[in-house]
Order: sequence, then structure tokens, then C-alpha cells
Amino acid sequence: MKLEKLVGERFKERPADCVINSHAFFLRGGYMKGVANGIYSSFLPLKRITHKIEEIIRQEMDALDGQEVQLPVVLPASLWEESGRYQSVGAELMRFSDRNGSPLVLGMTHEEAAVQLVREYGQSYGRYPFFIYQIQTKFRDEARPRGGMIRVREFTMKDGYSFHTSEQDLEAFYARCLEAYERIFQRVGLPEVISVASDSGMMGGGVSHEFMLLTPVGEDTVVLCPECGYRANMEAAVCRMENNRDEVSAPLEAVYTPNIHTIEDVCEFLHSPQEKSCKAVVYQREDDNSVFVLFLRGDLEVNEARLNAYLGCGIRPAVITPETGLHPGYIGPVGLPDSIPMLLDRSLCGANNLSCGGNREEYHYVGLDMAREFPNAEYHDFAKAKEGGLCPVCGKPALQIRRGIEVGNIFQLGDKYTRSMGMQYLDQNGEAQYPIMGCYGIGVGRLAASVCEARHDDYGPIWPVSIAPWQLHLCCMRADDSAAHDCADRFYEELQKAGVEVLYDDRKVSAGVMFSDADLLGIPFRLIVSPRNLKNGVCEFSARDKSFSEQLPLDEAVRLVTGRIREALA
Amino acid sequence: MKLEKLVGERFKERPADCVINSHAFFLRGGYMKGVANGIYSSFLPLKRITHKIEEIIRQEMDALDGQEVQLPVVLPASLWEESGRYQSVGAELMRFSDRNGSPLVLGMTHEEAAVQLVREYGQSYGRYPFFIYQIQTKFRDEARPRGGMIRVREFTMKDGYSFHTSEQDLEAFYARCLEAYERIFQRVGLPEVISVASDSGMMGGGVSHEFMLLTPVGEDTVVLCPECGYRANMEAAVCRMENNRDEVSAPLEAVYTPNIHTIEDVCEFLHSPQEKSCKAVVYQREDDNSVFVLFLRGDLEVNEARLNAYLGCGIRPAVITPETGLHPGYIGPVGLPDSIPMLLDRSLCGANNLSCGGNREEYHYVGLDMAREFPNAEYHDFAKAKEGGLCPVCGKPALQIRRGIEVGNIFQLGDKYTRSMGMQYLDQNGEAQYPIMGCYGIGVGRLAASVCEARHDDYGPIWPVSIAPWQLHLCCMRADDSAAHDCADRFYEELQKAGVEVLYDDRKVSAGVMFSDADLLGIPFRLIVSPRNLKNGVCEFSARDKSFSEQLPLDEAVRLVTGRIREALA
Repeated sequence: MKLEKLVGERFKERPADCVINSHAFFLRGGYMKGVANGIYSSFLPLKRITHKIEEIIRQEMDALDGQEVQLPVVLPASLWEESGRYQSVGAELMRFSDRNGSPLVLGMTHEEAAVQLVREYGQSYGRYPFFIYQIQTKFRDEARPRGGMIRVREFTMKDGYSFHTSEQDLEAFYARCLEAYERIFQRVGLPEVISVASDSGMMGGGVSHEFMLLTPVGEDTVVLCPECGYRANMEAAVCRMENNRDEVSAPLEAVYTPNIHTIEDVCEFLHSPQEKSCKAVVYQREDDNSVFVLFLRGDLEVNEARLNAYLGCGIRPAVITPETGLHPGYIGPVGLPDSIPMLLDRSLCGANNLSCGGNREEYHYVGLDMAREFPNAEYHDFAKAKEGGLCPVCGKPALQIRRGIEVGNIFQLGDKYTRSMGMQYLDQNGEAQYPIMGCYGIGVGRLAASVCEARHDDYGPIWPVSIAPWQLHLCCMRADDSAAHDCADRFYEELQKAGVEVLYDDRKVSAGVMFSDADLLGIPFRLIVSPRNLKNGVCEFSARDKSFSEQLPLDEAVRLVTGRIREALA
Repeated sequence: MKLEKLVGERFKERPADCVINSHAFFLRGGYMKGVANGIYSSFLPLKRITHKIEEIIRQEMDALDGQEVQLPVVLPASLWEESGRYQSVGAELMRFSDRNGSPLVLGMTHEEAAVQLVREYGQSYGRYPFFIYQIQTKFRDEARPRGGMIRVREFTMKDGYSFHTSEQDLEAFYARCLEAYERIFQRVGLPEVISVASDSGMMGGGVSHEFMLLTPVGEDTVVLCPECGYRANMEAAVCRMENNRDEVSAPLEAVYTPNIHTIEDVCEFLHSPQEKSCKAVVYQREDDNSVFVLFLRGDLEVNEARLNAYLGCGIRPAVITPETGLHPGYIGPVGLPDSIPMLLDRSLCGANNLSCGGNREEYHYVGLDMAREFPNAEYHDFAKAKEGGLCPVCGKPALQIRRGIEVGNIFQLGDKYTRSMGMQYLDQNGEAQYPIMGCYGIGVGRLAASVCEARHDDYGPIWPVSIAPWQLHLCCMRADDSAAHDCADRFYEELQKAGVEVLYDDRKVSAGVMFSDADLLGIPFRLIVSPRNLKNGVCEFSARDKSFSEQLPLDEAVRLVTGRIREALA
């Protein structure tokens, strides 16, 4: 391919709305163009990158005996009604109707469609286990698309679905798939991606993992314990805070606290640290709209995913009406109206000398002693992990909080979908059973952008050769010099014959333009032909990552370059 | 791949709603499954076929210097408003709104998105010509999906868009693309596909061609002249009917024809053939709702595509109100109200002794002589071609009407999209110009189904090796016989090592089940290992199309089979 003919514009200025590097480089390098909020078109360089990523994924899925299928982008709403997700999933599920008024959705994940595809096939135990996957366009009507390819509305995803007759079989396959994922990230050039335990969220089911590229620009939060290796995403992370119980418990005492509502204000007024306060957060259950109060240590935040999982239903911040008997800003566990259930976070267990709301206007309590006031209370883990928090596995106060990009996820789904959609098989005894499922996703475009986030310098991406749009960037400096141009033309032809993917720049442009374009395109190897080097019978071979730069004899160049690239690909 | 593990059910009974063979075989053979009206999921065999078709298309597009891109499935309505198609295209364009109320559409074709992608890149003449293409999911909300993969709502399509600075350049590229299409159809195993001139319809622009597989089950109509090679689809076909002028013209005379409204009834009543009648068809223009009447010979039908093109606006059957002064069933050219314009088809030119409506209730005329009554009339070609009609090129009464499946199309679009969407370049003189475009489509799934229509027997498809899901079907008869099973296992391993794509059936099933499954899967070559043949030191190698069946010595089998398949692929 000649660079002169490459469709797409490259430019110098970082667009104002680009917060992260991959977004900026993908626009500046002619990789993609915005079409609408969170919707992009791709030019050839990005298309070539994603093709290669898809081929690596395909190979690894086939190695797991995966069978590639294709499920529809546009799905009848009835399938999502069967699973119950037509109701339970929010506005990110794009809903519309066809010309006959039949309700449709755009697939944002395909558990329902996968079950529909194999519902008849999977009627006999002898056919299990099996694993289908696809690589396909999905649409999720994100409220806030951002970061270029990192969070888009339309995206290409590999999603796979495995079907099993036992938990052990699912777990064994799940472990193999986890390893395949690690190989995929390794092969695309991101060996540093880690798997973390995660919350299943809208997918349902039990065990699940996310694959995270740790980076300050990530939008997900990961909890790590460097002491024992514990890893979880924030939603799934358990955090046991230390409760510093003072030796002497002060008596419970009401304090007049006019116009003081927030934890910050209360603690400042009382000259006491937030760790010594008891914070109230009021929610409403989504199933029956009933109001309840969660109490936790004042310096902590609620992990709503864990709270959801504990309750088995959705929640939302409560609308506090006078009928509840609650006094916003003054809510505490002592004297809470009987009609209002309360939940207690483990961070309060055994704590004393706490401040808390007085359950009447303009009054707080000090001297709250949980063990004394609530001797029979139950405590659960509802708080978000905090830097320095106690690791739930090794118990050391070592938790670290990091940002990450989620580049893949795998879920053990159990029988949520097969049961709701009536997929059954007859087991050895002729009894009907619900198969159990796993599902396995990787966002292709997000993965490409993540590689760029992890592998770039100030001037552009540094693509690993396994997914680079081309393997070699051939530059002819001074294309007006016929000897140089002839030599570069010959290299172009011979290298292509040798099977090297060459992007050839023989434009009559300055060295500055030529190299800044080359940096933006990020091709890992570069071969430069120039009149000056020609005089010495050499050309210059270098790496985009600056790991080497050497002069090659002209008549050896094709052989040496080809060998080097083959080696890098191996 | 072991057949035992292939996900998807095969069955014997032809589903009741399958009108055409490819539909029935694709369901019966576990190629696909219906999800909703006109929406299907594909299993592995069909996925492998379409992969191979896509790869052939990709190679031919790359050979035209095509650059693969990816345009969104979900497009902002604003793009289609720019081109005017948001209004002009009917309900087949799926329209909906996102969570913020922004109107979106599902791309059913991507001229607008292609222009949006290259609008900035194409600002200088030096960058032309260029050609981008994609292979991607599209959705068209068809009123009547039918024929399985032949007419669906969701489909995978290769669509390409070329940009040029002159008509000559577009025409030269268009000719190359036409040849590439012929190569594609040849390579996927349909050398008999023909190109026919076509009407551009909703695409706009001038010259266009459709690629047709002639088959009685096709839903398109093609007009052919075996005398001179003229080929056009029905919409584009010009037909000049012979007008048999009688030597003696009878006088114009009113006839009382009570309760006789249709051409058939009038002709029967008057004992005269339909060729000797003048039929009225009343339309309303879509631009100003005005009513007009088209007259043509009674035995002919209106080619509305040609009428649209002549008028430059859409039309619809008229609602005839009393205010028009028209008498339905009695409308004729003589005495038509002055306020109603009339158009005359060339089939009436010079005709005499015709019957026609009398423009008053219950009366017709006989003895209409167009030359006498309308000496200054203009005639145009508005009639649909008819079997035996005059060829517009060689003039012979030889036209044939055939059915066909449209497997591809190419259009010269002119500047319809670049002008409406404000895409311009500066030419050599620094003047702003609108580039002109061509567009080039192939439906991948429809092509797969078309190959099946053209290549099958009573038992299933006969896939050409170039797109077959696997190249060799290996059958182990009597898998319970350990010698046979061992031999087949060895073949399976060695053939795969030799690079052959093998589907291996070692199930313990009857020969009948084994062969009927093999027929449904349609793999072109078959190798059969059986205890009986083993005793003679041979195995059986045959073709799905029954073109050969031979016994191969066991120790030569792998080499000979591999050679034969390589030869077929070459």
C-alpha cells in the first residue's frame, strides 16, 4: 500500500474533546472518524488492526472447540421478554418497533439469542458441552459515551456462550477460557492485563471475572492486595475496615446541632474525625418501593452492587417524605422509626464513641456505642473498598485502589437464561434438566484502543507487530532523487513478494511530515532509503519503539528485514 | 471438525413455509435458524460458507485498490436528511430515536455514511480516484421477507463507494468493477450470472447494472433478446410494440356499454382483442398531487419505473373524485376533460380501430384512430416489455421474459450525494467541483443461497469447493469396527495435516442417516472408510455431484485426495 493513496486525514492538532491518548491518536492518525455521539467509522488502518485482533481471537476460540455462529443485530423484543431483561435493563437497551408495530431491540449482548439458537439442538445430554461464539456489531445506548473507542455506543464484540450439564464442567471450561483470554491479551501485545473477580451485574449468575488493563485513564476501579494477590473490581471487592474501639465508651448524649446536615459539617462541628461517625444512606427498594436506611462509617461509601446482590433487587436513592418519620440530615440508628428497616455495615461492628443523627430536627447524638446500643445487631459488607483497607483474603491493611480499562469479561451464568427461556435437556435418567451457561466477551475496538493506551509515546501509537496495520513502514527520503526512488521501489516490490506487509511512503514531502505521519501510524519497523545512505551502500532499519536503529547493506536489506519481522511475529 | 460435535439440527421434513430449495436446505441442514420474520441466526456451516465468499470478495475489491473501512450500522438521521433520503425513502428505512430523542436510522445502504467519511479527505483533486468498501450488517424493514436468505430484513452486504473527478474516470472504474464482479461470481461457482442494465431507483444516478442468476424461483424479472444480446431488468427495459394498423379505419362511434368497466369486459362485449383497445391508467403525481391519465394498448402493463423517470417525481394510483370530471371505467383519450393531462404510450402510435372509454357513464367508443384523432400527439415508452416484444436494440420481435435473483448491483451515481451533502474538491484551476460517485453492492447471504439454488439435487446443496463449508466429508461406516475406525482416525489426522478441511463423521449411525446428513451438508468431496473395502485394501472417494466415484489404495489415499482437492481449488 502506498501511503499517498491511503484514504484518511492525518493532522497535528490534538482535538479539544480528546481526554485520552488513543482517542486523539485515532483521530489524528486517520484511524477513525466520528459520525454521531459514540458512533465511529473506521478507516483502513484501524480496520486492519481489528481484523488481526479478530483473527487472534478466532484462533483461540477455535482452539477451545468454539463454533463460530452469527446471531442477529436486530432482535425481537419477545426474546428479551422471555428472559425478563426487556423489563429489567434500562435505557441502554435500544427499543423500537418495525413497520408492523412489532417491538424490536438492538442486541447489546446475546444470551437470549444464543439460547434461542440452540434450544432444540441441546435437548439431549449427549450433545453437551458445546461452545458457540460470534464476532459482531452491538449497540448499547450509553448515556455518556467517551474516550473514543473506549466507551462507544456501537461496537464490535466477540461474545461466546458455553452450555454444560454440570457446575464442574462449566468451571473446567471457564478455567480454560480464562487461559485462552490470557493468551489473547498476550498475543495482541498486552501481557500485563490482569483478571479480577467481578460482580455479575445485569448478566446474573455467580462467578465472573473482568480482564483489566491498569491505567490511570481507565474508567473502572480495581481493588488489589499486593500482599496476597487478591484482585477484584470495586463492585465485587469486599473490604473489612478496622474498627478502632476506644477503651472507654462515653455515654450516649444528644447534642444541639442547628443547620448541620452533612457528615463533614457534623464532624467539623464536633471536632471529631469522620471515622468516628455513623453515616445514614436512605434507599428505596425497586420491588416494593419501601424505604430503608443503611448505616456505615462516615468516611466510607456504599458499594451498591453488593447491596443489590444482598437484597436481590434494585435500589434507588429514596425520596424522603414526612410520612416516613425520617428527618433528613438527622437520621441515626438510635430511635429510628420502627417502620423503617435498617442495615448495618461491618465497619460499625464494635465501634464506639460515634456521632450519629438524633432522629429529630437539629439534634445529633455523640457517644454511640454499637455493641452497647445494639447488642444483637447483624453486620454485613456493604462498603466500598478503600486504599489501605483490610484485604478480605489475607487480612492485611494493604488494599490498593487502581484505575483500569475492562478489555474482556467472562461470566458463569448458571441457569438464569435456560430456565427463564425454557431450554431443557434429558439427562441419563431421562429427567428434564436446565443446562448451565457461561458467557465470554471481548470488545475488539476497545482492545485496539487499550493497546494504544499502553503502547505509545508522545507522537503516536507503537503497535505490536502482531496487530500492526502494516509490518514495515518504508520511507523514501527525497523521492525526487531517482536513484533513491528506484531503490525504494525495488524494496517495496521485493519485500511484498517476501510476504511482508509494507506501507510505502514515496511522497515528495519533507522529512518532518514523513516521520510525523509514520509516528502516527505506529508501524513497528521502519526502513529508510535516502540519497545520503545510498552513497554508502546502506539503508536504515529501525524500530518505532527506538529499541534499535541500524544500517543494512543494500543487497542484504530485504533478507534481513524479512527475517527480523518473521522473528518478531513468531 | 467432528460431525458429532457440530451444533445445529438436521432433519428430513421440508418445513411447510419453504417455497424455494435453498430456504428448505438451509433449515434442514442446520445452516441457519429463524429468529423473527426475515431475521436469521447462522450456524457454523453457513458461517464458513459466507466467510469464504467474503474473502473472495475482499480479494477482488483489494485488487481494485479498494480500501476496507467500516461504516456504522446505526446512523444519525441527520445524514439521511442531508441527502434527502430521510424523507424520500419509505418504511423500509428503520427509523427510531435514542435515549436523548435524537433520531437514528439503521443503515440499509451507506452512500451518506461514505460521503461523511471522506468529505474532508477528498478536498483536493490529487487524491482522486479512490475506492472504499466494507462488509457489514444492514437492515431493511422489508414488507414481505421471503425465500429464506433470498429476501431478509437483516443481511450482510459488501458495499463499495468510488469517488472520481470525471465521468470517464468513473466509467473506466465501473467497467473494471463489472469485470471484478464477473470474477467473483465465477469464483464462488456461479459463472452463469449475467449483468443486465437496470433502473437506478432510490439510488439516483444514471447507468446501472444488476447481476442476475436466472432461475424460475427468482423474484426479479429480466428482459433478454437472444438475437442481439440485449439484457435489462423489467424496470429498465424498453419495449416497442408493433402496432398493427388496419388498412381501413372505421369511423369513431359511441357504443352503449352498461356496467362494463374493465378492459377484459369491454373487449369481450365488443368481440375485439385487447390489442385493439386503448387502456387508461390514472395516476397522481407525488409532488403536486395532480391527476393525469396514461393511455396504452389494452394488453400491456405500465412500467412505473420508466414513468417515474420521465416525470422526475413519484406517482401513485389516483383517488378519482367527482371534481376531476373523470368517469372510472369509461375513461378515454377523446373528450378527456381539458384539466387532465394525458400521456400516450408508443404502443398506440399509429393504431386504429381501437376501443376506448367514452368519457361519460356507460359509453365506450369504437373506431378510435390515433393518427386521425390526435395528429400531433407525442408518444413515449411507458409499457412493460412483453414476451415476443420488439427488442429496442435490434428491433426483432424476440424479447424473452425470465425470472432471476439479483445477486449484485453496481450504480453510476453522479453527484447526487456529493452535491446534496456538500462534498467538494478544488480542481487544477482552484475551482470547487463536486466529485462523482459509483456504488457497488453484493449481498453475501443471498449469494450463498443463490449458489444453493443453482447447485443442488433433491437431497441437498452441492457446494463448489471454493465456498464449501468443508472440502472433504470423511465417513467411517461401522464406527464400531475398530480397524475401520482406526483407519478413518488416521485419515482425519493426516488429511488435516495436509491442509485439507475435513468434516469427520464417525457416529455410530446407519449408512442412511450418514449419507442423508452428508447430502444436506453438500461437501463436494467424500471419502468413505468401511470394513468391507478395508479388506480389499481400498477406500472410496467420490464427488457430491456424482461426477466420479473411485476406489483408492489405502496407502495412497491421503496423497490422492489432497491432490484432487488442490486441483479443484486452483
